[in-house]
Amino acid sequence: MFYHIKELQYEAKPSKPDPLYAKKLQEVLGGQYGEISVMMQYLFQGFNCRADQKYRDLLFDIGTEEIGHVEMLATMIARLLDKAPVKEQEQAYESDPALAAVMGGMNPQHAIVAGLGAMAADSQGYPWNAKYIIASGNLMADFRANLNAESQGRLQVTRLYEMTDDRGVKDMLSFLIARDTYHQNMWIAAIKELEEREGDVVVPTTFPRSLEKQQVSYDLFNFSRGEASKEGRWAHGRSMDGKGEFRYISAPVVFGSAPKLKPAPKELFNTPKKGE
Amino acid sequence: MFYHIKELQYEAKPSKPDPLYAKKLQEVLGGQYGEISVMMQYLFQGFNCRADQKYRDLLFDIGTEEIGHVEMLATMIARLLDKAPVKEQEQAYESDPALAAVMGGMNPQHAIVAGLGAMAADSQGYPWNAKYIIASGNLMADFRANLNAESQGRLQVTRLYEMTDDRGVKDMLSFLIARDTYHQNMWIAAIKELEEREGDVVVPTTFPRSLEKQQVSYDLFNFSRGEASKEGRWAHGRSMDGKGEFRYISAPVVFGSAPKLKPAPKELFNTPKKGE
Amino acid sequence: MFYHIKELQYEAKPSKPDPLYAKKLQEVLGGQYGEISVMMQYLFQGFNCRADQKYRDLLFDIGTEEIGHVEMLATMIARLLDKAPVKEQEQAYESDPALAAVMGGMNPQHAIVAGLGAMAADSQGYPWNAKYIIASGNLMADFRANLNAESQGRLQVTRLYEMTDDRGVKDMLSFLIARDTYHQNMWIAAIKELEEREGDVVVPTTFPRSLEKQQVSYDLFNFSRGEASKEGRWAHGRSMDGKGEFRYISAPVVFGSAPKLKPAPKELFNTPKKGE
Amino acid sequence: MFYHIKELQYEAKPSKPDPLYAKKLQEVLGGQYGEISVMMQYLFQGFNCRADQKYRDLLFDIGTEEIGHVEMLATMIARLLDKAPVKEQEQAYESDPALAAVMGGMNPQHAIVAGLGAMAADSQGYPWNAKYIIASGNLMADFRANLNAESQGRLQVTRLYEMTDDRGVKDMLSFLIARDTYHQNMWIAAIKELEEREGDVVVPTTFPRSLEKQQVSYDLFNFSRGEASKEGRWAHGRSMDGKGEFRYISAPVVFGSAPKLKPAPKELFNTPKKGE
Amino acid sequence: MFYHIKELQYEAKPSKPDPLYAKKLQEVLGGQYGEISVMMQYLFQGFNCRADQKYRDLLFDIGTEEIGHVEMLATMIARLLDKAPVKEQEQAYESDPALAAVMGGMNPQHAIVAGLGAMAADSQGYPWNAKYIIASGNLMADFRANLNAESQGRLQVTRLYEMTDDRGVKDMLSFLIARDTYHQNMWIAAIKELEEREGDVVVPTTFPRSLEKQQVSYDLFNFSRGEASKEGRWAHGRSMDGKGEFRYISAPVVFGSAPKLKPAPKELFNTPKKGE
Amino acid sequence: MFYHIKELQYEAKPSKPDPLYAKKLQEVLGGQYGEISVMMQYLFQGFNCRADQKYRDLLFDIGTEEIGHVEMLATMIARLLDKAPVKEQEQAYESDPALAAVMGGMNPQHAIVAGLGAMAADSQGYPWNAKYIIASGNLMADFRANLNAESQGRLQVTRLYEMTDDRGVKDMLSFLIARDTYHQNMWIAAIKELEEREGDVVVPTTFPRSLEKQQVSYDLFNFSRGEASKEGRWAHGRSMDGKGEFRYISAPVVFGSAPKLKPAPKELFNTPKKGE
Repeated sequence: MFYHIKELQYEAKPSKPDPLYAKKLQEVLGGQYGEISVMMQYLFQGFNCRADQKYRDLLFDIGTEEIGHVEMLATMIARLLDKAPVKEQEQAYESDPALAAVMGGMNPQHAIVAGLGAMAADSQGYPWNAKYIIASGNLMADFRANLNAESQGRLQVTRLYEMTDDRGVKDMLSFLIARDTYHQNMWIAAIKELEEREGDVVVPTTFPRSLEKQQVSYDLFNFSRGEASKEGRWAHGRSMDGKGEFRYISAPVVFGSAPKLKPAPKELFNTPKKGE
Repeated sequence: MFYHIKELQYEAKPSKPDPLYAKKLQEVLGGQYGEISVMMQYLFQGFNCRADQKYRDLLFDIGTEEIGHVEMLATMIARLLDKAPVKEQEQAYESDPALAAVMGGMNPQHAIVAGLGAMAADSQGYPWNAKYIIASGNLMADFRANLNAESQGRLQVTRLYEMTDDRGVKDMLSFLIARDTYHQNMWIAAIKELEEREGDVVVPTTFPRSLEKQQVSYDLFNFSRGEASKEGRWAHGRSMDGKGEFRYISAPVVFGSAPKLKPAPKELFNTPKKGE
Repeated sequence: MFYHIKELQYEAKPSKPDPLYAKKLQEVLGGQYGEISVMMQYLFQGFNCRADQKYRDLLFDIGTEEIGHVEMLATMIARLLDKAPVKEQEQAYESDPALAAVMGGMNPQHAIVAGLGAMAADSQGYPWNAKYIIASGNLMADFRANLNAESQGRLQVTRLYEMTDDRGVKDMLSFLIARDTYHQNMWIAAIKELEEREGDVVVPTTFPRSLEKQQVSYDLFNFSRGEASKEGRWAHGRSMDGKGEFRYISAPVVFGSAPKLKPAPKELFNTPKKGE
Repeated sequence: MFYHIKELQYEAKPSKPDPLYAKKLQEVLGGQYGEISVMMQYLFQGFNCRADQKYRDLLFDIGTEEIGHVEMLATMIARLLDKAPVKEQEQAYESDPALAAVMGGMNPQHAIVAGLGAMAADSQGYPWNAKYIIASGNLMADFRANLNAESQGRLQVTRLYEMTDDRGVKDMLSFLIARDTYHQNMWIAAIKELEEREGDVVVPTTFPRSLEKQQVSYDLFNFSRGEASKEGRWAHGRSMDGKGEFRYISAPVVFGSAPKLKPAPKELFNTPKKGE
Repeated sequence: MFYHIKELQYEAKPSKPDPLYAKKLQEVLGGQYGEISVMMQYLFQGFNCRADQKYRDLLFDIGTEEIGHVEMLATMIARLLDKAPVKEQEQAYESDPALAAVMGGMNPQHAIVAGLGAMAADSQGYPWNAKYIIASGNLMADFRANLNAESQGRLQVTRLYEMTDDRGVKDMLSFLIARDTYHQNMWIAAIKELEEREGDVVVPTTFPRSLEKQQVSYDLFNFSRGEASKEGRWAHGRSMDGKGEFRYISAPVVFGSAPKLKPAPKELFNTPKKGE
Repeated sequence: MFYHIKELQYEAKPSKPDPLYAKKLQEVLGGQYGEISVMMQYLFQGFNCRADQKYRDLLFDIGTEEIGHVEMLATMIARLLDKAPVKEQEQAYESDPALAAVMGGMNPQHAIVAGLGAMAADSQGYPWNAKYIIASGNLMADFRANLNAESQGRLQVTRLYEMTDDRGVKDMLSFLIARDTYHQNMWIAAIKELEEREGDVVVPTTFPRSLEKQQVSYDLFNFSRGEASKEGRWAHGRSMDGKGEFRYISAPVVFGSAPKLKPAPKELFNTPKKGE
């Protein structure tokens, strides 16, 4: 069960309105790697967690914090929209290039649909959807998803940090960036702990290796002419799971044959082969 | 530029048709973490790669291989559908429970839309879409996305491996599982190489740490009552990036204030405050 | 069965082209609460109506009118696009700020995809989809959905009315706004009629109240610290359905326990608990 | 900012697993009118609220409660999936019709993707998306959206109540149904308060009526042959806003003319008129 | 403007309910090539038509007829759902395999969401969306889209015709199939007329051929090893537009070079090249 | 199985960066009729092909070429983004109208999400999805889909050709336009071959005509008042399939009756008829 207090975790006040930036900032609220994504991903991983209590608790700690980040970003966006030019003023439009650009560039839904409020959508107005998240029941897999989300998320926030001169915005983003620093550190630690406990780095660790086609488990197939890819650690030496040797296969061979599919039943009215 | 040969990378022949399983197998063809996702993700990371040639080459090696995996799965699904019961036979339907279940459980679009062919969709018929993929221009972030994709992907394939007794299907899946073993090893190696080269594990490493709100960069905030989450490596000791000490904050404080938003301009017809 | 005449229900002629406004106007054609939504919602409620003939007839009256509103908006948008600058003229672009804003701000698909025609999409180019509509078989529920749609719709049209100075556009919008005035009145009347006939205001009225957990049927739980919400009619006095008394619960209690989920079967390769 | 406690607001324990029902129950978790929708809708209305504090507080009270409902449903679904048959056992499949139906009818993603966890999707596996919600800045409009959501939601939960014999499930649903009873009462009270305060029932009340085409503001146009729709309150008598008289127009006239669109510029390569 | 009469264009009465078939029939109502698609596609092509009046008129003739087809299919689906088993009866479920299959196989939203009504969705419950349609302003292109839609549509309806033994359903489908026969004939005639009038078969005919890279305008590049594709009319002889000769290129050459992308600006925090 | 070489099929170098045009060009990469669509459509038609080998081979020839077109467009877009202004410079923004327009008009995701890379999305940022494609198993139907795709695709590319003055861009587009010229010729040839071989032009040709309601197989129903549509070839003379005579029906009659639906079972809580 959840509780709310009125205070924001961190201040969300821009120095002045900026509807173009409000549009951009939507990316880290409702985009693929925005705060709604991490909030929902951590909460669902928590809801579904069948493993140790400490992971469940951790997921709720972070997932609950992220609801508060959604709140901060929504608040900031609403304030960036405060004085958006929503009434047509033709003369202004023609004499003021910056205003004209704002008229052309802001997200029209911020005015028409949301009445100068934040939306659960990204910087192109594409609505958040639940295919952005994963909760698989396998924590090593999911913590890698989480580390990815925090990596993409921090990357996007730092880019947005560079796209504004507004002190208030930069201040809030510096807080979110710092939290992403912790969250990356945290998931790296949690992944390492799980890898050590399970004694393997290949997800899922509990599937018997004997059941996979082991002769191709450590081979890099050169499918793009040129051998630059040979120069990486992934192409030679002991594999990262310590169970094999990396090999570089310059000219990958075919293991299968050319498929021929059978005709479909007549009642499907597929194109028959000539003469059938 | 790309070339095709008719042979499959690996054989894709089931022992016998099974339209219910064909529906399930769609998940790893056209689902969130299916082969279309990794194919498109690696190709777009390759197309957009502005970093060293060896990464670009690697991405094309693997991305091109994945087109072939899409081909294998599509072929397998078409064959699993070979003798799907598509013509109504009422009496059979009532006397044969297994047939009845097939009639009820198979994906009707496999017959109606695709004429017993594979679709670029998941096991629930939801179409593949490009929000499943990422190509951010930051390889450490993207390789973490790739490691996650191969982890979720291998997990799903192993689950599907357990859901069938068909030798032909299991044989093909054992090949895909082995390739995922390599791909996980490979991305771990590539990530490690980048982390060492860039001297940090926090994406993006080039954003100056001095610009983030450093006092919260290593703190776990206890937002879910109960302190089980304190028991992990993420809550104490040196941080994974070696730049700080993890702290556990039992009672996280508020840094911000309760927001009050300004009224919207009249021409938006929002609800005014009482008396306004 | 349906018939069409060539005349529009109301004139749809702008004073002059305005491709930026065309983009915005798409919201009330193909957006969440645009005319396509009400057209499809009323028609499907009509198709599926199992209740009295007069409701069925009403739904077809309004649903059929809305097809005509879709036609009016599409026509208006096509005309607003009439002279959109679709050919690159670099020098003009640099010297004319208003033109530059248009180039940057118009929906590029209006030219590239639709050849200066309207699209079944919203002001951000997001395509209309059928999850915008509902036809539940319960008319009191659905008429509330309809009242909401007409309320959001009229709100959006009035906002768009303020965003233009074009007399022709304003004239057409004044017609749509008036129709929404009627439609809101109409659904309010219809809802009231149903509430009186069914003797309750809680949907569905036919579910026995004795089967619900009645001790929490009239309680406002204070989950957001601060008690401002206590000051409304919803927190004290007779409930609106006349069957209980509103109560304000300052400190809501927990009715449940902390869940512990069982481990998943091994063949799913979930993370097991430590030591399992 | 938000906090979490481990206890559920209400117990979520089924008497026994039932993966088919788990699939159905997803509708009220992640469907168009599921708990995620109301949670997100109320929270965003709260984040964006520029009106009186008591509305903002109310929205957070209810929105925060709904996060807890999401938690309850997710927990229930995970438990309903507890012993889902995920390993193929061919012989069982043929001799046990109920098992066969389960194999065919359960959502395969519950096993393959989520490892027997709940998903943020509906009963057909369609992912939740943010176009389900609205936060317009106009509370009368939005509270009508809320009343609709609680009406559709309670309707769906009562239907699901009838679709199971499981005591534990019915017990939890009886709690949710009771809360929906309150929420409907609450939104009705809040709407009434706003209507009285603003002195009108037509959203938005602040748009000057003189600007709308008033001669059609109270007319029902008979667009579907047959006059059954004349028999309702909406076709005669004083309008619900008290500002006009309802009229029934048997044979609606045309106000506009047949549109003729101008040719598009040549550089768009549209089909020209013959001879152009 | 549109009018409605209560009679269906053709009878839509099944011999008896069949909820599994209702689910399948949704495909041709709300699927990619269902009746909603052709209805919306023809109407939007009509709304946007800037060419001769006869095309505009034709599009409205057919588009308006299709609204009636949507109505017929929705009515049929509602009736097929008439006696769907929506109340749990555990004992029946275990002893009656056909009923069990229905419970497992029917679309749960038909009961939970739509109260036994049709939905604007396909046979997998995926909602109709406007990306299924096109109205480009170029009629030769769009009529080809229309011919494709009627071809896929008739194919799907004939497949559904084979999947039922119900006389009433088959009767209605035989009407739709016949109309699709006309519509295919019609679009073929209209395309031919346009091709003759414009003197070319390559869309758009008005783009000057001199501006395209004409040396590759008639070449089949053999990108898939093996030369079976050489055996078709497309590989030799006069081209269909009469302006060139088809050629078969066994070993297609490269016209471009290997791309090297420039580094991104630092403020995007992309991965720099080693040593940069 | 597939192979890649580093060289592009054709050069993809713009004369200078242009982030606004990059946004537009996305349409033919990741839009409804972009290169990803034809690539995926041809590959899936190839994977699923149960007809003659020469069709399968042809589909792989073209599908494989299209992967290379995706590569060319992605490369071009990345280069057009090379110097996109991603760092806020307030003063520049106000004094330079062209720059202001770029700031307002470019796709913000190109910077924030993709780090100046191409995305698998259209010119409005809407992600590519698999509902854009079809592979039905009936080649006459699918080749018509292909002809449509190449027609819409070439139309869009020619429009984009007119929207730029950049020589490098125009050069690459002239190549794509020429290839579309071939592909249209090719699909016309292939369709003609199939029509001749199958002896009919109505898809599917193998469904017995005797089973369709033949009295309406050649009739144009005049559903839109006015008879301009009578003036086309489709309204008189021998039908295109040679099996009937076109007829123009001025006043189409009703074949069905007005539907009355039965009440739903009580446990669905639909609105009952008055008095029920």
